Amino acid sequence: MRKGELTRKEIEQQPSVWSSALVETGEKKERVKHLPIEPEEVIFYGSGSSHYSALSASMVYQELTGVRSRGTPPSEIFLFPRPFTVTEEILVFPISRSGTTTETIEATTEFVNNHDAYSIGFTCHPDSDLAETVDFCISIEDAREESVVQTKSFTSMLIALQRTASTMGENEKFFKNLEKLPAKAKKVIRKSYDTVGKMVDEDDFHHFVFLGGGPLYGIAMESMLKMEEMVLEHTEGYHPLEYRHGPKSMIDDETLITLYASDSGVEYEEDLLRELKNLGATLFVVSENGRMRGMSDYSLELESGLDEFARAPLCVIPAQVMGLEFALNEGVNPDSPRHLQGVIKLGKGEK
Amino acid sequence: MRKGELTRKEIEQQPSVWSSALVETGEKKERVKHLPIEPEEVIFYGSGSSHYSALSASMVYQELTGVRSRGTPPSEIFLFPRPFTVTEEILVFPISRSGTTTETIEATTEFVNNHDAYSIGFTCHPDSDLAETVDFCISIEDAREESVVQTKSFTSMLIALQRTASTMGENEKFFKNLEKLPAKAKKVIRKSYDTVGKMVDEDDFHHFVFLGGGPLYGIAMESMLKMEEMVLEHTEGYHPLEYRHGPKSMIDDETLITLYASDSGVEYEEDLLRELKNLGATLFVVSENGRMRGMSDYSLELESGLDEFARAPLCVIPAQVMGLEFALNEGVNPDSPRHLQGVIKLGKGEK
Repeated sequence: MRKGELTRKEIEQQPSVWSSALVETGEKKERVKHLPIEPEEVIFYGSGSSHYSALSASMVYQELTGVRSRGTPPSEIFLFPRPFTVTEEILVFPISRSGTTTETIEATTEFVNNHDAYSIGFTCHPDSDLAETVDFCISIEDAREESVVQTKSFTSMLIALQRTASTMGENEKFFKNLEKLPAKAKKVIRKSYDTVGKMVDEDDFHHFVFLGGGPLYGIAMESMLKMEEMVLEHTEGYHPLEYRHGPKSMIDDETLITLYASDSGVEYEEDLLRELKNLGATLFVVSENGRMRGMSDYSLELESGLDEFARAPLCVIPAQVMGLEFALNEGVNPDSPRHLQGVIKLGKGEK
Repeated sequence: MRKGELTRKEIEQQPSVWSSALVETGEKKERVKHLPIEPEEVIFYGSGSSHYSALSASMVYQELTGVRSRGTPPSEIFLFPRPFTVTEEILVFPISRSGTTTETIEATTEFVNNHDAYSIGFTCHPDSDLAETVDFCISIEDAREESVVQTKSFTSMLIALQRTASTMGENEKFFKNLEKLPAKAKKVIRKSYDTVGKMVDEDDFHHFVFLGGGPLYGIAMESMLKMEEMVLEHTEGYHPLEYRHGPKSMIDDETLITLYASDSGVEYEEDLLRELKNLGATLFVVSENGRMRGMSDYSLELESGLDEFARAPLCVIPAQVMGLEFALNEGVNPDSPRHLQGVIKLGKGEK
């Protein structure tokens, strides 16, 4: 098999798998609507890519339901439980592609056994340990992957989380918007290959930065992880305006900065782009409408008609394609990254 | 002036400035005790280093008071306010060395004007914009810096935040422990020069990682920022167990990983160290008692007698010294990093 073929296939399957995710989640709609709890706090958690979908999904959930929501790595929950157990009415959303990630199971057990939390798991494996630990599970089997690096599983579980939030927030309009995502994804995949192809042709980049805020902060961090895992290059993720406060010291002529343009902070972001350009960075803007096209070196317009809470899964596609194409260009196989396995299980003080 | 002299002076002033921070904060004790609000939520925010002291301080506050606490960059507050305005009884702690950081002022104005929040500012400049915006300010003038990069201002404002948390949590024992910090700092500074001196002598490191959880996550991130700003090398910060989920792909024989050992997760951390060692990283453990000395290449024992919530400011000292000494070793002047200014003010759509 050619290098990167697994990853390429899984990226390109996203439109159809996203449809499956919407169907699978829709079938659990009645259970989601009639939970035996009125949550005062909702906690999303997972490790690696699932940590970043937790960050993004918690912002969406907060926006649609008004209920206090936060995302965290699971290790923080069982090592430092206090911030997560202030109320007695806790709803938790553990996220794990394999359904076997040790920390995610351990955090869920802590919540269920010691804090009487209600739990809904998100996974690609319905027969996993996670599925046995939670009250019920939303499983997207079509999102299972052969590649170590998550692509379609990340976006599909994120869409399942968005769909669940729309049900709990009784937001029909948002749900209708989610249904547009699969068709939009096809176009974004095509545009991503076009734009990233040009970047790779003039590839002198050895430092990558991804910037996003609100629901797109998790997307920026997931993008960072794609580049680190697949391309093994120095990559960072930040909230856009935070990047000015120190990290910009690292900019040189090998720096490529990707901004996920928000709806809320356009004027600040334009100001930021001007400064980053002056410092010598190459700029790539992923935006809804291309408003900042003239200020950037590369531009990809999503043209989704969706707000930043709904379009989040589309935004990560260009970074998935960057991971694939930059890796191949450097002779690295993105299907099986250095040092990594598909599932992380921890011993606890084992020799 | 020799390169790095400002930074060196400010690192070494920490024991005496920490005493000033405790005195200044103590003098505001009665005001802190008798706030005209019973907060249901406390929000800590700042940019750059102050973002990371916000993350650390919010964990301390949560632990000591039981009141829901979180840390965030200020841009998230005014661009995506919903997660921060769920309750009507909000206490906010804006943090800004200069007291003029645009985003921190803007977030404070949002809270005060639109959400009737009560605000206590933390700064080194009592006559600043921040001081005029908040209900009252805790100002540590001795923590003002000539260097662009924050060292003593970060730790002193963190100690002021810890002291405030101990007052609000009526935790006399924790307060007594904070009073031990200045004397402990002297020893940790000396040990840091010793240990970092050895590292620099065999410096083949071009990739630095800092790992810490709970109250030490903010410390790991601040350490990351010190290395980026001063040394301009590829540096990352993570929760310890999260580092396994992808980022470890970047480990090679030029990687130096610093772990801030916790009290809560020792067994997990020992397991982690074994794996990182097998992947070829060089390991530096900053711990209370040296339990993991045999598993690491470099070890610094704080021997403070303090728990992880109290000893957080001590932990960052080795990273400050790493920034200074690695920069000098590479011929970079840590007093005036590339691209950076001491104060960040933003235009908003200005040309």
